[in-house]
Amino acid sequence: MEQKFASSLLESAVTELSRLPGIGRKTALRLALHLLRREPREASALGHAIIDMREGIRYCSVCHNISDDEVCPICASAARDNRTVCVVENVKDVMSIENTGEYHGLYHVLGGLISPVDGIGPDMLEIASLVERVAAGNVDEVILALSATMEGDTTNFYIYRRLADYPDVRVTQLARGVSVGNEIEYTDEITLGRSLLNRTPFADSFAL
Amino acid sequence: MEQKFASSLLESAVTELSRLPGIGRKTALRLALHLLRREPREASALGHAIIDMREGIRYCSVCHNISDDEVCPICASAARDNRTVCVVENVKDVMSIENTGEYHGLYHVLGGLISPVDGIGPDMLEIASLVERVAAGNVDEVILALSATMEGDTTNFYIYRRLADYPDVRVTQLARGVSVGNEIEYTDEITLGRSLLNRTPFADSFAL
Repeated sequence: MEQKFASSLLESAVTELSRLPGIGRKTALRLALHLLRREPREASALGHAIIDMREGIRYCSVCHNISDDEVCPICASAARDNRTVCVVENVKDVMSIENTGEYHGLYHVLGGLISPVDGIGPDMLEIASLVERVAAGNVDEVILALSATMEGDTTNFYIYRRLADYPDVRVTQLARGVSVGNEIEYTDEITLGRSLLNRTPFADSFAL
Repeated sequence: MEQKFASSLLESAVTELSRLPGIGRKTALRLALHLLRREPREASALGHAIIDMREGIRYCSVCHNISDDEVCPICASAARDNRTVCVVENVKDVMSIENTGEYHGLYHVLGGLISPVDGIGPDMLEIASLVERVAAGNVDEVILALSATMEGDTTNFYIYRRLADYPDVRVTQLARGVSVGNEIEYTDEITLGRSLLNRTPFADSFAL
């Protein structure tokens, strides 16, 4: 339902806020009225943070992760294993993997997955730049960390084929198996079957 | 969980977005990444709409509703019945009543309800200005349209007492009864009891 507003300034703010995903006009109005009740400084900080982010943000020229500089902090770090590259779909996946604390190599952000249905071909993703990084001879292992979906599998296979020219580079992918905390009863059959085929020595689990 | 961001610009945007009510850091990150994927124009429009609203918005000098001008469109309208004033808690309630299409008088926005628990006394609300409007002799009826809560009842009673000096002014309140669409079985006993006491002639319902 369209609301009638007594102020065109409120109207614009509600309209712009409701363009955000998952935010309808009712929620947008609630957010706008909240901002009106708070200090002017708070609305100003929010507005400027959004504008500055969109105008100022850059992408790392090596891995295409979000960055304030030409090269992102991860690629620039001397403490990271720069001969291992983890291929991910997007910026959020970099954050998820960083949060595990288990990975100390570099990344390569594709910017999407191959999806003929959505008209996304390999040329629209950062695959050529990945092949260049490998061709330059700086990489020992490429870890494919894409979603376990049809698009992810297609992209995995395409990259695997493109890297076939470099047999010294190990291409691996994330282990697929029963999620930690999940019950066997509720695990789907394909995952269960694959986790049987890829079973690991029990003694290895002590090391984790 | 705190996320590590590769960009301080993204970090600031997420922090500011997550100050909004009902938006956590995960949602804020999703919104920020959405804005990064869209046209720069869109983020700029959102940021400026928020800043302009907070800096530019004013309150009607008559009814204290949100307004772009000194007097809001409702108070300024010649088509409205300017001898009836509906007293509401906040700006959102004005919108709710306007959306019913059933009301053609003016408003008076209190800016809250009397609540000793929260330290809100009558002096912190726009009650004195309401009494002034009535004292000026321009009002025939004051409709109390406050929430059916203890704070609403307290505020109703306080305003009723303050207006006792003007016996020519009718003070009314919203009808309380069974909500349209609600089943009797699930209506609370106090509401049901009051709706029995305030029963209306059946023939009147044809007029609506």
